[in-house]
Amino acid sequence: MSDSETCLISQAYSSDLFSAAAGHWKSLLTEHLQRLQAGNSKVLNWVPPDESIASAAQWMNAALAKQSDGPAEGVRKLIAQMLASGQNLHHPHYIGHQVPAAVPLAGLFDAVSSVTNQVMAIYEMGPWATAVEYALLGGLCRKVGWNDQHSSGLLTHGGSLANLTALLTARNVSIADSWKTGIPPGTTLVTNADVHYCVTRTAGILGLGAQNVARVPVDSRRRMDVAALERTLTELRNSGRAVMAVSACAGSTPTGAFDDLKGISEVCRRHGVWLHVDAAHGGALLFSRKHRHRLEGIAEADSIVWDAHKMLFVPALCTAVLYRNRAHRFETFQQDAPYLFDPSAPGMADIDSGMRTVECTKRATGFGLWGLWCLFGEELFEQLVDHTLGMTRHFYQLLLTESDFQTLHEPECNILAFRYLPSELRTASLERQNAFQREVRTRLIRSGEFYIVQTTLDGMAALRVTVMNPLTTTQDLQELLDSLKRAGQQVLGH
Amino acid sequence: MSDSETCLISQAYSSDLFSAAAGHWKSLLTEHLQRLQAGNSKVLNWVPPDESIASAAQWMNAALAKQSDGPAEGVRKLIAQMLASGQNLHHPHYIGHQVPAAVPLAGLFDAVSSVTNQVMAIYEMGPWATAVEYALLGGLCRKVGWNDQHSSGLLTHGGSLANLTALLTARNVSIADSWKTGIPPGTTLVTNADVHYCVTRTAGILGLGAQNVARVPVDSRRRMDVAALERTLTELRNSGRAVMAVSACAGSTPTGAFDDLKGISEVCRRHGVWLHVDAAHGGALLFSRKHRHRLEGIAEADSIVWDAHKMLFVPALCTAVLYRNRAHRFETFQQDAPYLFDPSAPGMADIDSGMRTVECTKRATGFGLWGLWCLFGEELFEQLVDHTLGMTRHFYQLLLTESDFQTLHEPECNILAFRYLPSELRTASLERQNAFQREVRTRLIRSGEFYIVQTTLDGMAALRVTVMNPLTTTQDLQELLDSLKRAGQQVLGH
Repeated sequence: MSDSETCLISQAYSSDLFSAAAGHWKSLLTEHLQRLQAGNSKVLNWVPPDESIASAAQWMNAALAKQSDGPAEGVRKLIAQMLASGQNLHHPHYIGHQVPAAVPLAGLFDAVSSVTNQVMAIYEMGPWATAVEYALLGGLCRKVGWNDQHSSGLLTHGGSLANLTALLTARNVSIADSWKTGIPPGTTLVTNADVHYCVTRTAGILGLGAQNVARVPVDSRRRMDVAALERTLTELRNSGRAVMAVSACAGSTPTGAFDDLKGISEVCRRHGVWLHVDAAHGGALLFSRKHRHRLEGIAEADSIVWDAHKMLFVPALCTAVLYRNRAHRFETFQQDAPYLFDPSAPGMADIDSGMRTVECTKRATGFGLWGLWCLFGEELFEQLVDHTLGMTRHFYQLLLTESDFQTLHEPECNILAFRYLPSELRTASLERQNAFQREVRTRLIRSGEFYIVQTTLDGMAALRVTVMNPLTTTQDLQELLDSLKRAGQQVLGH
Repeated sequence: MSDSETCLISQAYSSDLFSAAAGHWKSLLTEHLQRLQAGNSKVLNWVPPDESIASAAQWMNAALAKQSDGPAEGVRKLIAQMLASGQNLHHPHYIGHQVPAAVPLAGLFDAVSSVTNQVMAIYEMGPWATAVEYALLGGLCRKVGWNDQHSSGLLTHGGSLANLTALLTARNVSIADSWKTGIPPGTTLVTNADVHYCVTRTAGILGLGAQNVARVPVDSRRRMDVAALERTLTELRNSGRAVMAVSACAGSTPTGAFDDLKGISEVCRRHGVWLHVDAAHGGALLFSRKHRHRLEGIAEADSIVWDAHKMLFVPALCTAVLYRNRAHRFETFQQDAPYLFDPSAPGMADIDSGMRTVECTKRATGFGLWGLWCLFGEELFEQLVDHTLGMTRHFYQLLLTESDFQTLHEPECNILAFRYLPSELRTASLERQNAFQREVRTRLIRSGEFYIVQTTLDGMAALRVTVMNPLTTTQDLQELLDSLKRAGQQVLGH
């Protein structure tokens, strides 16, 4: 192999170049955080998708390392481009999806993995990644109220994959031989009506058929109606249909509602049905002495999904699947992979993550959460929960004083859905009112002043905020109202 | 909310603290890379799992930010601990699993996402992440030989999830109504005998039943036997069993073998069966003028999986699922999520990744690959492939000259399986020979001198190397032989 054939390799792996480029990385990110936290930029620089894609493709032809100003300067230009074109979650006017302005320090711990490429599947490949994962699982199980010697779980890439993993386990435990022979017709997944799409999706993925989802109605607080659940399970049993699981919700996506886990768990136990709790959003309230009552009964669940990259404020993706009975962690898959799992060391199967997760090679997803926990202890998570929930309640009370705004529920966490209905629209058709919500939002976010989102509840379009940046202040929330009114007046042509 | 209730939040989000901590991050990682690249450390510092886990758990009680030397020093201590306890992929003696010593600069691009938390699901949440993903998909489709206007795909978290996604699409296209109503009994997945466990797993996950996998035997080069595939498909048709897909392999896990994609695709076309190619490892050879002939015929595939975090040398996880017919990208799921997908902007469904990936919130997985491509162009990937394949061939030739070593195949890429059989073991039982391979490997890797792995082929245990660090030299490979002999003599008690 001649030098010319490998010259780019030497350059790409140079530690001097890395050091120079990492210097740019550090400076650019620090300035970026300072600028955003001061509110000195737009939240989102809206560019139509086609233009963005064309721009990203064009950079790929640049061969920046060959340019006269050299590869470190090339890295600087690329990072500057990335920072100028992204969603600015650290701007206090980012009050949108359930994706946090992550603690920047958590990003540093995560980024150790970006550079050193720590992964799992087997312990050898990521001994510290594995150790961190187990230590975190122990800590999270204890927050649920479980004995971490009897319970266990795994970390995986996001709530959707986590719900799929947990419900696959439920399927294999609840429907004997289904892993080996397939799914008996009519096998049903029971959810609440406001369930996240990734949960209902599992019926289609796991071979039940998407039509075999029973959606239990929600009550006036948009919680699963426990009496209706009882009737649903009785009807399913009477018609001879097996139940894969009941999936309850702790922090629903549309409104942040918490199901009555105590009531639901009693029904599930009576019917002998697997109880899964999607606590992707709401799990973090377990860290709050003030708010953990919302999750009363969660310790009765058979499986729980909990996103650290939501209300524990670490960067995506880091989700825990937790099993009350640790024996269930090996029910998800039953496989043989001799190049991975050493038959001469059978005890390692408990340590090797590949036996329990969809991923084979799995990034060390736990570093961010572990780093924050080591630095600040559980107290940081409690403050983050209490503060963002407090700000959401503040915004709710603000809206109550505004005659042109209609709240759609009392907030149970940091999510609030509401409608903006200026007097001239109050007697308009639902279609017109719905279109207005969407038009106002589009105008607002493309102005770059704020980033909020939308939802639809029972056919009613609504605006929706999630306080996911702990630096958002009461003044920011007042300004949001003012900006919404301004955008509304513009939409109405005033 | 009083100050004391939020004081940790202010500290955690301080940009000054971030800057100081990022300075430690940069210094520690630079020194780490320098030390490893010079070979001045063990590859793996073996610590039993229980001890590692106890140590990781203990740090979680440290509350380092409250200690007198302050939070930046706490970050420094934690990063130092992480670096001291991980797998050292950047050591030239790391010649193990198919996880690369990633290009350190790729880690910097990835780490922009770690700090700014860029994600997808919808374009708004990660406009640049989305743009980068589409630009990369276009580039990868073109390397396959497809017109990127007719083809498309997605990026996802790892090869296992990617194979699951592609085969779910295959199932929904091949078995009408299976998404909605479930899986007809006997529906079968056809694979080659050396398939990765994540592919056969899909039969259990997707509701076919794990027993409904037909494994086509491999030929003397461990490639799928094309005549046997023809017979298998004919038999399945004659017995009335539907076929979900044929899954072929470009770079098998045990030996790196490449299936005859041209021959297989002709059989699949004749039988009207979906052809999936797991090119997680081998896809990168498409960048090499010298080696791309191994993938001849891949453009006939219906779906392809390709890990950038293998032979494109970016950090985990970054995998592409590619569809020849772009219409198939919406066959994977059929869902409704009003809080995400704006009914007033229906064209965005093509841009919003959540309609096509298992993940809802999805990390910006493409940044590392995009950054390298922009800096060095396709030439870097060609050099990485050519060089690591060249080193593997060198090692193969070295082994051919050693009477105590037995190669199990001629390497087709950068993977080589072999056995160490000192003269006194040549007439020993297979069990004894197998145990010896494992004992030698365990002794070698726990010494920290080298990291290599193992596999089992047709009941025969073997040692296995993958040249995944382009800084591994011919001298390192000679030293590996010497170290293996030394470990072998120790195992034999000499």
